[in-house]
Amino acid sequence: MKIITISREFGSGGREFSRRLADVLDFDYYDKEIINAISLNKGMDKNYVNRIMEKDERANIPLTFGKSFAGIFSNSTQTELLLEQKKVIEEIAKAENNCVIVGRNADVLLSDYKPFNIFVCADMDSKIDRCLKHVREDESRDVKNIKKKIYSIDKNRIQLREFITDKIWGEPANYHLTLNTSNWDLKELALTSAEFIKSWYKGLVND
Amino acid sequence: MKIITISREFGSGGREFSRRLADVLDFDYYDKEIINAISLNKGMDKNYVNRIMEKDERANIPLTFGKSFAGIFSNSTQTELLLEQKKVIEEIAKAENNCVIVGRNADVLLSDYKPFNIFVCADMDSKIDRCLKHVREDESRDVKNIKKKIYSIDKNRIQLREFITDKIWGEPANYHLTLNTSNWDLKELALTSAEFIKSWYKGLVND
Repeated sequence: MKIITISREFGSGGREFSRRLADVLDFDYYDKEIINAISLNKGMDKNYVNRIMEKDERANIPLTFGKSFAGIFSNSTQTELLLEQKKVIEEIAKAENNCVIVGRNADVLLSDYKPFNIFVCADMDSKIDRCLKHVREDESRDVKNIKKKIYSIDKNRIQLREFITDKIWGEPANYHLTLNTSNWDLKELALTSAEFIKSWYKGLVND
Repeated sequence: MKIITISREFGSGGREFSRRLADVLDFDYYDKEIINAISLNKGMDKNYVNRIMEKDERANIPLTFGKSFAGIFSNSTQTELLLEQKKVIEEIAKAENNCVIVGRNADVLLSDYKPFNIFVCADMDSKIDRCLKHVREDESRDVKNIKKKIYSIDKNRIQLREFITDKIWGEPANYHLTLNTSNWDLKELALTSAEFIKSWYKGLVND
C-alpha cells in the first residue's frame, strides 16, 4: 500500500494538485471526506466541524496533547475532533488502499506507514492571484486582506502542527518532495510529479 | 538558453546530483570551474581562493555589499573574490549555453535570466552517513563533529546569502523544486528530475 500525504500553503493550489495527482495515479483521495467522516461519527454538522477544525480554539488544548496523544485532554470540542480526526486518518491507512491524503498532518500521524510526503508552496503573487480567482462574492477582493488571510491560515497550520510534532511545517527535509506551483499548469505538474513518485517507489523496491 | 541553479545543504549529495543532472540533460556544468576561473583571472592559487570563499571573512564585508553590489567595499580579499565570482557567473550566462551551476547564489545573481532553481536537502542522518563515506583520513569520524561541520558550513551559506538577497536560503517558495535526496539513488533522482524539468520548460513554451 502506498500513502501520499500533501501539506500545502494556502493559495498554492495544493488541493487541486492533490486531486489531480490522485486521479493520475488512480489512488483514493481524502480531503473533505475526512471532515465528513468526523461529522458522521460525532453526529455533528460538517460545516460546524470544519469551522472548529480550522479556527482558533487551540488555546484550550493542553501541551500534553503532544506526540503521544495520550496526555490529559481538556474538554474543548477541537481537541475531541482532532482525536476523532486522528482515528479517521488511521482507519484510512488500515484499509490498505493506495491513497492521497490532503493536510491534517497525516504525514506525522501516519509516519509508521512510511508515506511519501509532499509539501506544496507557491510565490506570494501566485497565491494572491489564485485566491482572487476563487474569492466568493461576499469576500474582500482587497489584496492586503487576501495576503492577511494567507498568512493567518498558514500560521494556524504551523501552530497546530507544533502541538503534535517537532517536524516543522514546510521545512524541506521533513518532506520527500517540495513543489512550487507558480507558473505550472497543475494538470502537467500532477503528471510529472506522478512519474517522480513512481521512480521513488521503484527505488525502494530495488533497495 | 536554459540555466539550472542548484543550492544544496552540505552532505545532501547536491554536488553529485548536479553533475549527474548535467550529464543526463547534456548541459554544461559549473562548480569548481568557477573557482578555477576566479583564480586564473586574479592570478591566485585556486586552493587559496576556495579557502577564502568558504571561510569566514564576512565580518569584513560591509552591509552595503547588498543587493546592488554597488556600495562601498572594504578591501577584504573575500569581497574582491565575491565580485570576481559574480563576474564569472554572469559571463557563463552570457555565453548562452544550457548549463547547471552549483551553489554560489547563482539563482539570485542570474535572476534576470530566469533560471530553474533547485534546492537539494536531506535528513540529518543521511547527511551524516554521506559525510562519513567521504571523510578524509585526517578528518574526524566523530558524529558530533560531523554534525557541527554540517551546521557550520550551511550557516556560512545562509549568512553569505543574506548579504546579497532577502530570498532566504532553503525557503521552498524561493526555488522551483526542492529535492530531498534521502533514500534516493542519485542517478535515478537525476533521471527523474530531468524529466520534471523538461515538463517545466515545455509548459513555459506553451504559455
